[in-house]
Amino acid sequence: MPFKDECGVFGISNQQEAAKQAYLGLYALQHRGQEATGICARENGHLRLHKAQGYVADVFSESVLESLPGDTAIGHTRYSTHGGSLSSAAQPFLVHGRFGQLALCHNGNLLNTESFRNRLLINGHTFASPSDSEVIIALINTAKADTLESAVEEVLQQIRGAFSLLILSEKQLIAARDPHGLRPLAMAKLDDDSIVFASESCAFDLLGADYTREVEAGEMIVLGPDGLQSRFPTKKRGAKPCVFEHVYFARPDSLVFSRNVMATRREMGRHLALQHPVDADIVVPVPDSGVHAALGYAEQSGIRFEFGMIRNHYVGRTFIEPKQSIRSFGVKVKLNPVRDLLKGKRVVLIDDSIVRGTTSKKIVGMVRGVGAAEVHMRISSPPTTHSCFYGIDTPTREHLIASHKSKDEIRDFIGADSLDFLSMEGLQKAMGDMAGQGFCYACFNGDYPVPVEQTNFAC
Amino acid sequence: MPFKDECGVFGISNQQEAAKQAYLGLYALQHRGQEATGICARENGHLRLHKAQGYVADVFSESVLESLPGDTAIGHTRYSTHGGSLSSAAQPFLVHGRFGQLALCHNGNLLNTESFRNRLLINGHTFASPSDSEVIIALINTAKADTLESAVEEVLQQIRGAFSLLILSEKQLIAARDPHGLRPLAMAKLDDDSIVFASESCAFDLLGADYTREVEAGEMIVLGPDGLQSRFPTKKRGAKPCVFEHVYFARPDSLVFSRNVMATRREMGRHLALQHPVDADIVVPVPDSGVHAALGYAEQSGIRFEFGMIRNHYVGRTFIEPKQSIRSFGVKVKLNPVRDLLKGKRVVLIDDSIVRGTTSKKIVGMVRGVGAAEVHMRISSPPTTHSCFYGIDTPTREHLIASHKSKDEIRDFIGADSLDFLSMEGLQKAMGDMAGQGFCYACFNGDYPVPVEQTNFAC
Amino acid sequence: MPFKDECGVFGISNQQEAAKQAYLGLYALQHRGQEATGICARENGHLRLHKAQGYVADVFSESVLESLPGDTAIGHTRYSTHGGSLSSAAQPFLVHGRFGQLALCHNGNLLNTESFRNRLLINGHTFASPSDSEVIIALINTAKADTLESAVEEVLQQIRGAFSLLILSEKQLIAARDPHGLRPLAMAKLDDDSIVFASESCAFDLLGADYTREVEAGEMIVLGPDGLQSRFPTKKRGAKPCVFEHVYFARPDSLVFSRNVMATRREMGRHLALQHPVDADIVVPVPDSGVHAALGYAEQSGIRFEFGMIRNHYVGRTFIEPKQSIRSFGVKVKLNPVRDLLKGKRVVLIDDSIVRGTTSKKIVGMVRGVGAAEVHMRISSPPTTHSCFYGIDTPTREHLIASHKSKDEIRDFIGADSLDFLSMEGLQKAMGDMAGQGFCYACFNGDYPVPVEQTNFAC
Amino acid sequence: MPFKDECGVFGISNQQEAAKQAYLGLYALQHRGQEATGICARENGHLRLHKAQGYVADVFSESVLESLPGDTAIGHTRYSTHGGSLSSAAQPFLVHGRFGQLALCHNGNLLNTESFRNRLLINGHTFASPSDSEVIIALINTAKADTLESAVEEVLQQIRGAFSLLILSEKQLIAARDPHGLRPLAMAKLDDDSIVFASESCAFDLLGADYTREVEAGEMIVLGPDGLQSRFPTKKRGAKPCVFEHVYFARPDSLVFSRNVMATRREMGRHLALQHPVDADIVVPVPDSGVHAALGYAEQSGIRFEFGMIRNHYVGRTFIEPKQSIRSFGVKVKLNPVRDLLKGKRVVLIDDSIVRGTTSKKIVGMVRGVGAAEVHMRISSPPTTHSCFYGIDTPTREHLIASHKSKDEIRDFIGADSLDFLSMEGLQKAMGDMAGQGFCYACFNGDYPVPVEQTNFAC
Repeated sequence: MPFKDECGVFGISNQQEAAKQAYLGLYALQHRGQEATGICARENGHLRLHKAQGYVADVFSESVLESLPGDTAIGHTRYSTHGGSLSSAAQPFLVHGRFGQLALCHNGNLLNTESFRNRLLINGHTFASPSDSEVIIALINTAKADTLESAVEEVLQQIRGAFSLLILSEKQLIAARDPHGLRPLAMAKLDDDSIVFASESCAFDLLGADYTREVEAGEMIVLGPDGLQSRFPTKKRGAKPCVFEHVYFARPDSLVFSRNVMATRREMGRHLALQHPVDADIVVPVPDSGVHAALGYAEQSGIRFEFGMIRNHYVGRTFIEPKQSIRSFGVKVKLNPVRDLLKGKRVVLIDDSIVRGTTSKKIVGMVRGVGAAEVHMRISSPPTTHSCFYGIDTPTREHLIASHKSKDEIRDFIGADSLDFLSMEGLQKAMGDMAGQGFCYACFNGDYPVPVEQTNFAC
Repeated sequence: MPFKDECGVFGISNQQEAAKQAYLGLYALQHRGQEATGICARENGHLRLHKAQGYVADVFSESVLESLPGDTAIGHTRYSTHGGSLSSAAQPFLVHGRFGQLALCHNGNLLNTESFRNRLLINGHTFASPSDSEVIIALINTAKADTLESAVEEVLQQIRGAFSLLILSEKQLIAARDPHGLRPLAMAKLDDDSIVFASESCAFDLLGADYTREVEAGEMIVLGPDGLQSRFPTKKRGAKPCVFEHVYFARPDSLVFSRNVMATRREMGRHLALQHPVDADIVVPVPDSGVHAALGYAEQSGIRFEFGMIRNHYVGRTFIEPKQSIRSFGVKVKLNPVRDLLKGKRVVLIDDSIVRGTTSKKIVGMVRGVGAAEVHMRISSPPTTHSCFYGIDTPTREHLIASHKSKDEIRDFIGADSLDFLSMEGLQKAMGDMAGQGFCYACFNGDYPVPVEQTNFAC
Repeated sequence: MPFKDECGVFGISNQQEAAKQAYLGLYALQHRGQEATGICARENGHLRLHKAQGYVADVFSESVLESLPGDTAIGHTRYSTHGGSLSSAAQPFLVHGRFGQLALCHNGNLLNTESFRNRLLINGHTFASPSDSEVIIALINTAKADTLESAVEEVLQQIRGAFSLLILSEKQLIAARDPHGLRPLAMAKLDDDSIVFASESCAFDLLGADYTREVEAGEMIVLGPDGLQSRFPTKKRGAKPCVFEHVYFARPDSLVFSRNVMATRREMGRHLALQHPVDADIVVPVPDSGVHAALGYAEQSGIRFEFGMIRNHYVGRTFIEPKQSIRSFGVKVKLNPVRDLLKGKRVVLIDDSIVRGTTSKKIVGMVRGVGAAEVHMRISSPPTTHSCFYGIDTPTREHLIASHKSKDEIRDFIGADSLDFLSMEGLQKAMGDMAGQGFCYACFNGDYPVPVEQTNFAC
Repeated sequence: MPFKDECGVFGISNQQEAAKQAYLGLYALQHRGQEATGICARENGHLRLHKAQGYVADVFSESVLESLPGDTAIGHTRYSTHGGSLSSAAQPFLVHGRFGQLALCHNGNLLNTESFRNRLLINGHTFASPSDSEVIIALINTAKADTLESAVEEVLQQIRGAFSLLILSEKQLIAARDPHGLRPLAMAKLDDDSIVFASESCAFDLLGADYTREVEAGEMIVLGPDGLQSRFPTKKRGAKPCVFEHVYFARPDSLVFSRNVMATRREMGRHLALQHPVDADIVVPVPDSGVHAALGYAEQSGIRFEFGMIRNHYVGRTFIEPKQSIRSFGVKVKLNPVRDLLKGKRVVLIDDSIVRGTTSKKIVGMVRGVGAAEVHMRISSPPTTHSCFYGIDTPTREHLIASHKSKDEIRDFIGADSLDFLSMEGLQKAMGDMAGQGFCYACFNGDYPVPVEQTNFAC
């Protein structure tokens, strides 16, 4: 239960009521961002946009969706930002420019936009927000190339970082993924002639679309009047998709990077049990993030699996506490430890990761508070020692507890009887990545596939 | 995943910001009713009410809660009704009468109110709704007794059926449970001198209150200026609490009738495995209702447990479908089968009950649709052959598939390869009720503890 | 610009989409009450209700109106109450009782309900609110008579005070007016066979209904399966309709008590000019209440009429002031004095009445503030010395400035150079009531047609 | 009652809670635009914006205003657009550019932006909307000058058309008016050191600010760290302020172009009576637009003034009609003719202008419908024969009835017994413009002060 969710993107072509299909897709991708959402639909070459802060089901009513006619659409769900809400940063972005109307959705984070942005500002360009996604649009409009496709290719060669992009123009729908394929993006087919793009395959399932394949690392796909074209505008650099999608982010029923998330998590739990066995009575997941790893741990260890904490799924966006309350409601509103199952038991508590350590500390406290005899924390990934600069909202390094505390110090901080993490080798085995070259593991080992100079405004 | 939820009640005395505490309690009881909710709070003998249709988190804002000052409060969550929404039937009911202001919350259903209602109407009494809960208030106000307590006692002796009641007057807070204790109601202590009542103990957990005991079958508890008094106004008839609370309704982390719900469900699954083993590859629950029984089944049978279907917890109250859609979104919006886990597998599908059979049919179809080799349905309770008249919103008997179809016919209807139910004996063992006398099993065997003449408007 | 508005009632029979017609009627009667509104419609003997706090245009949407099918309906607009909002007191009231469903709307105030209410409470009756309108319903349901019509007749003979009532039952629509006809109620015809009732004729105009006549003082009209029946259940006592409807309340374009309001007000202004001439440059109304009297004054006196103050009609229900503001925005948000017209001028300021004097003081101050040389206040009715107990929300007597201050003292308080009021004789002439017996003038002379013992909760 | 309203702008510097002051100012300017509104406030060099569709009182809550801290602010109210709502075109516009953050409000319409826009597009600039106001921002950011002030000057020399601009930068507040001063913009002082700008003086009155003077035609005023500076970047071309502000648009209590609007309208009515007398019984205004001219007409002619039609000021934004209705509710919802005043009378009906003629036709029909003996229409301005290209939302020329029908044809179309218009000479006299050179009269005579090539998107 660590980082906040990142963004989700969705696109569909050649399908009646495309905006409603996009709504369905974003519905399924809601876990990737709850702050804001938007859909841009195209009808006869004309683009219309609606975006607002809120959940997909709240932002889009029947009448709003009917104000977005057309057979092609892209959409976005956005996660919460650091400080105040920046409604100007909701996506898709839609502009009128040299190539007519252009809308863009971005999942990821760029690393070299600052200098582009400064150069563009000097040349008189203006931006609606501090988002680096807007810089992509500005670069396209100021590219040397004189067709949209060439301009996009040109820009894809310039920008560095993580991006899964969907671009809707008056005639085309373009999908693109960065050379390392850091963020996911997959394709599917709906009916005979409708192509669908989504961050995760769970969006395809809800639409009834058939998963085709990943958009490849470095690939750019253009759906235009002449059909589908695929090209690779950038030098091949070796795919390094984000392992954290499997550790925590993605929905367990999704295929991400062609692998089922739930199965991977179970494997992580199995390897965790092999590496760090405990003499205990029950295996208890921190719901919902630790569930599948806990199942694997229990299976491998033979220790009984118990839902020793229950999550309240009716938790709303607002929660009102009594003023004079001496009780803290933070984690408690979401999680309730089950006294009858935990009392007197030696508990193996499974979570996917530890970020700041504060939530783990509260959870361990809650489990002890209802009478657990021992609490052994097992984490289904290695210690998170480095920040992500590729689109995941991690705290800066000094706030990552594992960046400056030893395992024993963390154990003491969270108040567990013992603490252990899955090793890098264990993680790689669970991912089927024997050589350890197939994914980005930077948050665990600092090995950043794209050199990091500075952080921008991520999505 | 069968019946709709019934109602939840909550009461608290002697605690600052009682309405906010009630809000927390109802938050935790949200699963017992999502249609409407209300809180009535008392300040210096003056009662104020707010109730509306919607979720607890939506109906109560900070400012609404601040308009309900005082140190004692009762609250209610209400489930969906049959046809149109009846906002007049939201609870608590609040009236000005002979004993001053009086508010009432009711979980359950009365069986003999029709004659009372008719007599009251003839005498000129008027009602705001068709709810039988209002009849209780009218009976109290027209009782022979000349104190509120005696009047309540008098009425408790007259009414037949299922009820867990909370009554708030200008000086007292009264809790009462029917002679069979059909519906749950428990007590807890918060700080030194605050008494809390709730349908389930999960509400106590969120408040940090300590569970004390059940309000007993037939008991009436009065919290007044003279402290707490307990009495038993009705003849003892033997407790028959509703087994279905454990089978399906209650939150798994709750204590209900002094038993932990989750542990009971796991036992049901274990006995199901003993009675109806299958040669299969994986055990898959229908989430969330079948999860704990499935864990028990897997544990007992040694067959691997898999979350072969994932539930989307962001599902909102409204859902918009494409118009020309040939796809049905009913169950699909909530549940997604995981192709990679199910493909080619022999699946034991576990659910808690089958009501009409239509949902089971869709789920079996979805599991087959992603390639399961075999689907064996196992139900962790006996066939539901009789309607409930005690507060659970079951269809009439002819719509209960098990009332008129044999096990084989149901199996064919839902399209499973095999189907089996936990036996009555198995259920009783799981409930620790060896003699089979300790619970109401009427929905499974038609043995109604209170004679049923007619159905009223339930809560 | 004195008292708050009172209530408005509307009823319609035998017309498709009756609720929508009621919505139109209440729209036209919005000035009679802005706090809450409601409509109860009947379809095939079944009554459905929607009521809420807010403006007619906000409370009723297309979908709400469609949830109120049927060909007969009654509706109500309610004015603001003293302290907190009492949503339980919104009308119509709808109950299930001995005569089936019964809904009631009431404009007016009853004087002898306290003893009835106490007797009913002792007998076990309960009330949803402190409203005296609810007592009427209880009395009907507990009457000796065994038909609804006879029960209503019986109750009309018992209650004292001011009432214009509309009662909707499963078969009938009943209209009734108190023996003095204190509050207005008129009838109209729409198409051939639809009868319409409304507080003022402006509601008929919007519907395109043709004004027929007043419901007479003491009359009870029953529209039932047998057509229209008129009777007079109470002893004739002499009509005494409220003169204040003409002085201030009613819409100027309405017929009230068969007289056009605007023409009456102009006459008041003419008589005021005859009685209290001033040597001045311009006649300026306090908008909107003083406009028509000011036109009359200007016409009679030959002094130039000027809109020396302009009213902002976009004023909303909420208004936010700067915190550190040393400026008071009370009256200023609504009224703006026009410097160029007022500067250096001797102004005759016309308003309809002075209640507390505080608003007049601010207005005189504003007019002086932009440079008027002299401000002469002329009021188109006599000094308001007595409270109203018949449905108009006046302050208690001690807050009526004219009850304890002389004309000169009031003049000094409001800061005018001179002050004069229309005399009782002048008012009676303007009303065409030469004998001074044809209207209730109690707020000016304390001559109450119904003896006043105590005040209740008015509408 | 002709054209739709145009826009209103407001700015304030050096005043605590500037956003709340802007809210007050926009409140007073609500009549200039009801579609959308926005405020941008500056705190310590940081700009924050809130804008949305709706009324000022609805869009801005206490909490929204508190999210806009700072001591300097600009705001805008926007009128309804032609077809669908274009929420992207709400103002102020706020961008991040070469001069930091920059916000802009515009009242008026530019005529030569198309070529600029095309050039900017070619150079890669992007726009959020089709609004010509955005082009101004782009031109500033791409100007040759390297300070904001010089860049604004440069742009003011380039753009042609009507504009009253307010520009808020991180350090400055700039006000500017086009060389002809077509649209209004005035200045005031609040307390000692706070400068206020507004389209009309009624905004100053509500704030308690003292009117100082007009921003002059062609003037650019900069409020910066060094105080106030005034300059005239463009060649002097002779002020030609819009006469239609006085004929219809402005609030009657405002000073516009240093003249009181109400007094001007009364003069128009007086001259109309001199030019086109009628033998009639009453003078009746079309409310609210014809009121002041009607007072002048009545005064001059000696014919009695009557409010023969009443306007319903509670009219909301939505209005629901019965479906099977054979009655048309268009004008009727707003205006009600007063039968008792009009019946049998010879009526002089006064309105400010006739645009399409359709509304006048309905009004004449309504007046006849309640029994007027004769209806003589008198219009307090000349026939509207030409479209406005300077910021007023007139229909294209072929929809202006006076562009292709003679006076007699119009009279027949609207169904009046006679029809006459104020002559150009009469209008000029009323405006005190004896030479006829002091205002833009283009909508009456086609004499456009700025050559018109094409129409853009106006505000």
